[in-house]
Amino acid sequence: MSGQVKYLLSEDEIPTHWVNIVPDLPGEPLPPLHPGTKEPLGPEDLAPIFPMALIEQEVSTEPDIEIPEEVREVLKLWRPTPLYRAWRLERHLDTPAHIYYKYEGVSPAGSHKPNTAVAQGYYNREAGIRKLSTETGAGQWGSALAFACQIFGLECEVFMVGVSYDQKPYRRAIIETSGGTVHRSPSDLTEAGRAQAGHPTGSLGIAISEAVEIAAGAEDTNYALGSVLGHVCLHQTVIGEECIRQMEMAGEYPDIVIGCVGGGSNYAGIAYPFIREKFRDSRPTRFIAAEPAACPTLTRGEYSYDFGDTVGLTPLMPMYTLGHDFVPPPFHAGGLRYHGDSPTLCALVKEGVIEARAFPQTATFEAAIRFAQCEGIIPAPEPAHAIRAVFDEAEKAKQEGVERTILFNLCGHGHFDMGAYEAYHAGKLEDLEFSEADMEQALERLPEAPALA
Amino acid sequence: MSGQVKYLLSEDEIPTHWVNIVPDLPGEPLPPLHPGTKEPLGPEDLAPIFPMALIEQEVSTEPDIEIPEEVREVLKLWRPTPLYRAWRLERHLDTPAHIYYKYEGVSPAGSHKPNTAVAQGYYNREAGIRKLSTETGAGQWGSALAFACQIFGLECEVFMVGVSYDQKPYRRAIIETSGGTVHRSPSDLTEAGRAQAGHPTGSLGIAISEAVEIAAGAEDTNYALGSVLGHVCLHQTVIGEECIRQMEMAGEYPDIVIGCVGGGSNYAGIAYPFIREKFRDSRPTRFIAAEPAACPTLTRGEYSYDFGDTVGLTPLMPMYTLGHDFVPPPFHAGGLRYHGDSPTLCALVKEGVIEARAFPQTATFEAAIRFAQCEGIIPAPEPAHAIRAVFDEAEKAKQEGVERTILFNLCGHGHFDMGAYEAYHAGKLEDLEFSEADMEQALERLPEAPALA
Repeated sequence: MSGQVKYLLSEDEIPTHWVNIVPDLPGEPLPPLHPGTKEPLGPEDLAPIFPMALIEQEVSTEPDIEIPEEVREVLKLWRPTPLYRAWRLERHLDTPAHIYYKYEGVSPAGSHKPNTAVAQGYYNREAGIRKLSTETGAGQWGSALAFACQIFGLECEVFMVGVSYDQKPYRRAIIETSGGTVHRSPSDLTEAGRAQAGHPTGSLGIAISEAVEIAAGAEDTNYALGSVLGHVCLHQTVIGEECIRQMEMAGEYPDIVIGCVGGGSNYAGIAYPFIREKFRDSRPTRFIAAEPAACPTLTRGEYSYDFGDTVGLTPLMPMYTLGHDFVPPPFHAGGLRYHGDSPTLCALVKEGVIEARAFPQTATFEAAIRFAQCEGIIPAPEPAHAIRAVFDEAEKAKQEGVERTILFNLCGHGHFDMGAYEAYHAGKLEDLEFSEADMEQALERLPEAPALA
Repeated sequence: MSGQVKYLLSEDEIPTHWVNIVPDLPGEPLPPLHPGTKEPLGPEDLAPIFPMALIEQEVSTEPDIEIPEEVREVLKLWRPTPLYRAWRLERHLDTPAHIYYKYEGVSPAGSHKPNTAVAQGYYNREAGIRKLSTETGAGQWGSALAFACQIFGLECEVFMVGVSYDQKPYRRAIIETSGGTVHRSPSDLTEAGRAQAGHPTGSLGIAISEAVEIAAGAEDTNYALGSVLGHVCLHQTVIGEECIRQMEMAGEYPDIVIGCVGGGSNYAGIAYPFIREKFRDSRPTRFIAAEPAACPTLTRGEYSYDFGDTVGLTPLMPMYTLGHDFVPPPFHAGGLRYHGDSPTLCALVKEGVIEARAFPQTATFEAAIRFAQCEGIIPAPEPAHAIRAVFDEAEKAKQEGVERTILFNLCGHGHFDMGAYEAYHAGKLEDLEFSEADMEQALERLPEAPALA
């Protein structure tokens, strides 16, 4: 042992602007399309469920967007988050690679999600909104939004996927501790829910429909989404901006930036500020997105316009997709069980700027446990995918005898995922498959829309 | 809003010495007594289960004891921990009090416990020990020790109280993730366990007996305890030492230092460095120890020699006690369910240096939830008692119109205690009683030993 472990910034070093990657992307951005007309979407199409400030961010081509002072004040409760040098892990892996990780698990919800929940809460309150509705699967996003609503004096109504509601009472208790209301979805509060009455498990698709219906039906209520959209990725870029300064403190620059991808926001958060530097300064930085082999959107999906939700009510977005009604098998990284990905992130994969890799579940838990034993932090199942990719790159550096600098986003802790670790220790964790048949079905189910290059 | 929220120290500001309060205590320290002879205990009596370095710390009268460099290296994984100014809570309480809290929940186990687990792991490895055995109730201490053992290459064998083993599989999964072995207690691995075969729930008393038996029976195995003893309190003083520097950064000095007390180590950790300053510099600082009304050791217990364990195998210690075989009712702050308290802490209560207060369970959860809504951290049920005391003192400051500075120890998060919050939200949390009859029984069960002044 060795040297400095943690690189900390002071509160006045919380970024003042978010990084908007859109103006630096090659080519013109592909617009989202109206689900009915298939014409490019206008701001007015989104106004019933989002405040205008967020719609403007969604279409902005400004490279830097100022963070409101009141948002920065709330971020001070946990930001800047620490950057760690993983000395013990490096020694364990016997690698010449230098491994750094950004730790977002210190936030109120235990993940990166509050970075955007707080911004969304702020803009909605400024717009005179009284209540936000949303869906949640495992509960991570629901607890982040409930916290933000509490801070800004908004009501928060969360539609929680039925099976999670039944199996994860603790996540529900967290949302309630933040003053949020949780409904088991399908509920009898919405038409969408009543139409599915008796559905045994519910699904994210149904829960989204319920939350959007509530928001669309009331003047003073809006909807909030936890990933995929442009403004959500934007709000997450504080992660990468802080990393740039912290890597400077460490006297290094990453050769590789790694993160897991579900909807794409945590990886966008750490990667986009570095991708902008790659574009502007012609840096050779590599970017690796890690996803589950059982939901291999980026590695095996089709690049196509598709709906964001299962039912097909949202705009069509240009992205890698497994088909909007694909229901991923029940692996434990609930935050990665999504059929598509953020359009900007997909565009960067398409351009070859971001490399995508898929990993089976048991290999990710094996890596997560070795990480925890070295570093003392139990990772959530989602960033365990990033850790698996880090292990592989560290091994490559060893084989090649190169001192390579790897940075990854440890986007959340696993304190509410110990059931998955329990299953691993009991030898009950399985690698779930994504088959050729799944892939063929996915292609058949794509909606009619203009083809993508 | 307001000003700086977090006061952070750099890694080279991790304390170099622990604060030993013993030489500053008024009068001669009362010795522990041999459970058989009732004579003062010698180092040789403890040698079968503790390494000599820890036994020396247990009896040391040096005011400052150096922290080994290798221990400080491990502490760097999470220390120094942050000190927060609770601006939002102050505003919510509408109090002129300035409220600061030290947050120990950032550690690997999510509490202060690893501060001593790491030190104990280090000294045992230095002594050539190969394995540590211990007991755990809710699992907090077991996971801290398993982490420390993993770091120092020791085996870790944890006897977990049967009912917790059955009800808290997640804590078990954490211990296993750190490479520890967990046995349901009573087990068939020890005589103590076999004698209790069929016991439906197990108890901390039985689990201690099993862990001690394993340690006493093998040359290469020692026993580790997570609270009460002098060396454990000593290792926790890094908390208060960091606070002294962080309060300096904030330009304030606490008028009141508050913490919860079970065995006493987290409160000793934050309070002893300030108590030493009180003694040496004649400061007017007040100290408040918060305990559960259903296990009111300091507020209603007898100051007497008593055993540390239920069975009566440990040395007799001078302390406030409810009787060594008192089984506290099943309230949720598992870490506060202990019949006695650290002897040094009890001596300071006896001297009037520390004031003790007892709080019913529902009032502590009510305070914890309001704290979480303001500050974004869900407290463990144990420090919820400290928060309740803080609320009362903040209200007093308001009534008196005095700008008072309050510091408390938020010794752990509640991520593994959400069942208790769930019960609170469902209106199912009860205030459990400690009756006059309980007290009378306690006095009857005290062992014969020299009376205390």
